[in-house]
Amino acid sequence: MKSHSLLLAGAATFFAAALSVSPVLAQPTAPSLADQADSALESDDYAWNFVEGLTTEVGPRQAGTEAEARGRAWAVQWLKQQGFSDVQVEPFMMNTWVRGEEKAEIISPFAQPMTLVALGNSASTGPDGVKAEVVGFDSYADLMDAPAGSLTGKIAFINHHMKPTQDGSGYGFAGPARWTGPSLAASKGAIAVVIRSIGTDNHRTPHTGGTTFAEGVEPVPAAALSNPDADNLVRMLERAPQVTMKLTLTPRNLGQTESGNVLAEIPGSDLSLPPVLLACHLDSWDLGTGAIDDGVGCGIAAAAAKNVAATGTPLRTIRLLFAGAEETGLWGGRAYAKAHADDPIAVGLESDFGADRIWQLRTNFAAENAALHDRLVRAVARFGVEGSDEEAHDGADLVIIGEQKAGHVDLAQDGTHYFDLHHTPDDTLDKIDPAQLRQNVAVWTQVVGILANEDQPIKSSN
Amino acid sequence: MKSHSLLLAGAATFFAAALSVSPVLAQPTAPSLADQADSALESDDYAWNFVEGLTTEVGPRQAGTEAEARGRAWAVQWLKQQGFSDVQVEPFMMNTWVRGEEKAEIISPFAQPMTLVALGNSASTGPDGVKAEVVGFDSYADLMDAPAGSLTGKIAFINHHMKPTQDGSGYGFAGPARWTGPSLAASKGAIAVVIRSIGTDNHRTPHTGGTTFAEGVEPVPAAALSNPDADNLVRMLERAPQVTMKLTLTPRNLGQTESGNVLAEIPGSDLSLPPVLLACHLDSWDLGTGAIDDGVGCGIAAAAAKNVAATGTPLRTIRLLFAGAEETGLWGGRAYAKAHADDPIAVGLESDFGADRIWQLRTNFAAENAALHDRLVRAVARFGVEGSDEEAHDGADLVIIGEQKAGHVDLAQDGTHYFDLHHTPDDTLDKIDPAQLRQNVAVWTQVVGILANEDQPIKSSN
Repeated sequence: MKSHSLLLAGAATFFAAALSVSPVLAQPTAPSLADQADSALESDDYAWNFVEGLTTEVGPRQAGTEAEARGRAWAVQWLKQQGFSDVQVEPFMMNTWVRGEEKAEIISPFAQPMTLVALGNSASTGPDGVKAEVVGFDSYADLMDAPAGSLTGKIAFINHHMKPTQDGSGYGFAGPARWTGPSLAASKGAIAVVIRSIGTDNHRTPHTGGTTFAEGVEPVPAAALSNPDADNLVRMLERAPQVTMKLTLTPRNLGQTESGNVLAEIPGSDLSLPPVLLACHLDSWDLGTGAIDDGVGCGIAAAAAKNVAATGTPLRTIRLLFAGAEETGLWGGRAYAKAHADDPIAVGLESDFGADRIWQLRTNFAAENAALHDRLVRAVARFGVEGSDEEAHDGADLVIIGEQKAGHVDLAQDGTHYFDLHHTPDDTLDKIDPAQLRQNVAVWTQVVGILANEDQPIKSSN
Repeated sequence: MKSHSLLLAGAATFFAAALSVSPVLAQPTAPSLADQADSALESDDYAWNFVEGLTTEVGPRQAGTEAEARGRAWAVQWLKQQGFSDVQVEPFMMNTWVRGEEKAEIISPFAQPMTLVALGNSASTGPDGVKAEVVGFDSYADLMDAPAGSLTGKIAFINHHMKPTQDGSGYGFAGPARWTGPSLAASKGAIAVVIRSIGTDNHRTPHTGGTTFAEGVEPVPAAALSNPDADNLVRMLERAPQVTMKLTLTPRNLGQTESGNVLAEIPGSDLSLPPVLLACHLDSWDLGTGAIDDGVGCGIAAAAAKNVAATGTPLRTIRLLFAGAEETGLWGGRAYAKAHADDPIAVGLESDFGADRIWQLRTNFAAENAALHDRLVRAVARFGVEGSDEEAHDGADLVIIGEQKAGHVDLAQDGTHYFDLHHTPDDTLDKIDPAQLRQNVAVWTQVVGILANEDQPIKSSN
């Protein structure tokens, strides 16, 4: 099938070239999928336009806030303007936490301010703050080894370092310091927790993100220092017997507020076939404008859908899911999975790892779809993308894929620089490299086009 | 004299090599200047130690504040520990401005927060802030062209871009937008001014710095947006007929407070000869920890002095001037020039442009010192430093050199990345590249050693 489509593409190119000699004979004709994908390398009509507009006209879109609602309204309008069908919002309720004042200073012996941001779900210190000795841990493992009660009355500092990796695996190594480190320290008596930012940059732009307190552990104030501040605190702890910090964080829980998923479609020609689902999330953390996380992901998904539509009506419907409230607990992905449990999906793809180039393609296909997997791999090779036999695993916005045990294609992006920006004030439009974004859209176009025109059932190996 | 010293250096190296075969014969002997400078390339006992300690144990040192006083006390202790002579503080009084709350948001049509910092000498908006339409100017020249009264009731936005340059000349081009742009806009009726940061990075870390209001112009609130925020505001202005910003800045003038210069010496063997003056400034802006601006400059000057002393007592005294309150108006350099008007200086050098490598040497020497100029140029060639016939001009901390028309040697540093960090929260220790810093110290050692042992008068061409 691959060689067949390549022959067709080749023939189309030849035919177009022949026609160009006698333009009077040219008829409006849809480009081939390969040509459409190739042309996405040269220009991008949708992805940049989407993320440029969203970050400029809406900006930060924290889950459950009125800013996220403005983001949904903006996206609905944009999707309609681009001619998508069935553009709609599916609302859901969620728990919302918002930051307040946040400041820290070393009181003694080396008095100076420190730059930090509260972690999602952090408790408040109250407006007067807390003042306590800092106890440092080089790693999450060291914190685990701390005896019960040993942190009573202290501020724990978790100095777990993150290193950049192409595949983002550094996040899996360093992430626990944020995800559960504060809860672990609190369970040993800490009255507050500061962590080194889970990030790979060296700027005074700390990385926020959610933290979770285990059942039975009373939440404590928890914040992330910027990496230069963490370095400074390490130097202080190395030279002083006791370092005292004052920490003031006044976040609030707003209780249940409304969020929502934005849906849109390119209808397929055979509505009996389950659709291809393209997912991303529309909410962002509040510090940046949510350009790489994940405005651009929604732009990429929309661009791929529009590019495929430009080659003709696809066999299967292509559905966009711009999930709400991903950052604070995958609320949107879970709400979609619940609402559409009886609405089968053929295969899902997610774009939620920045705007840099795609370097690998993975699937979770069953053995009977091995030919489809191979066809995808061969089709993206010209964009410098390798195939992998490693199994694609569910993305954050693709909860439904896991629940339905549906097909999944993972277009792995280069994450080397992603965690320089992730969850920081620095997540802004200027960080997107248009050339890498175009490669990304080209690969998505190629892959989504093949999947949306696949007439055989797509099954996962699960 | 150069070839002579090179021969000596060569002989010393050979002799040391010969001795190393029979270590029992070795005697403690001072290294040659060339060897000492070369060894600074390999290890640095002073410059890093100074800036690491100062940024860790004191941190930000804003002029006229108690933090600057702690910085002086720290420096005095450090200089005494390193064996400098006549370590002392010369106090002076100055006008002190400190920042308060600072925040901005676009109210309409694209509501979102903006990241900015107040400029030194900014007026206060009062706690309730000001709300007004933004009028944008692409350049300082465009603002000059705005008719009188045309900005009445508006917030002026000066979008003057700065580009990185090795020699820092981009600052001269873009700087006026900060130095006098707010005054110019106020003179045309603006009730507040925001500028694009005078800086070459793309981080959400705005660049502060002083601004000056002309006589007869009532100061207005003035602040710098980070470059990504300025980009965003430009996009808004391009698509909306009217953009409204709310701006809240509550800085205060503290009136006269005390600052001071820290002085220290390596006494020369001939006290009748005017000394060599090595200058830097100890104060910093309040946002960062003053690592590259200018803690490291004082470390470089001190390291050069100590390295030269390690080669034996110099002919001329080497004096360190760690100036206070440079950032807010060269108060320290002016106070030193006034206090020491009758205390002739032979030649001055300043380190106040970060920690990166030195690439060019300039002097202002009179024709009769041409041989000394040439000797300096030849002596630093092995460190990759070129000589220049361009005349050295006074540095910010070397007011006395201008007033005395004394000698000046300018060791020009690579400023390509300096304005990524200058006056931002990101001016922290981790930004210093130890390898470039060692080259810097090596060149300083070589040059200061030659100057401090020059027995002929050193005269400027002025």
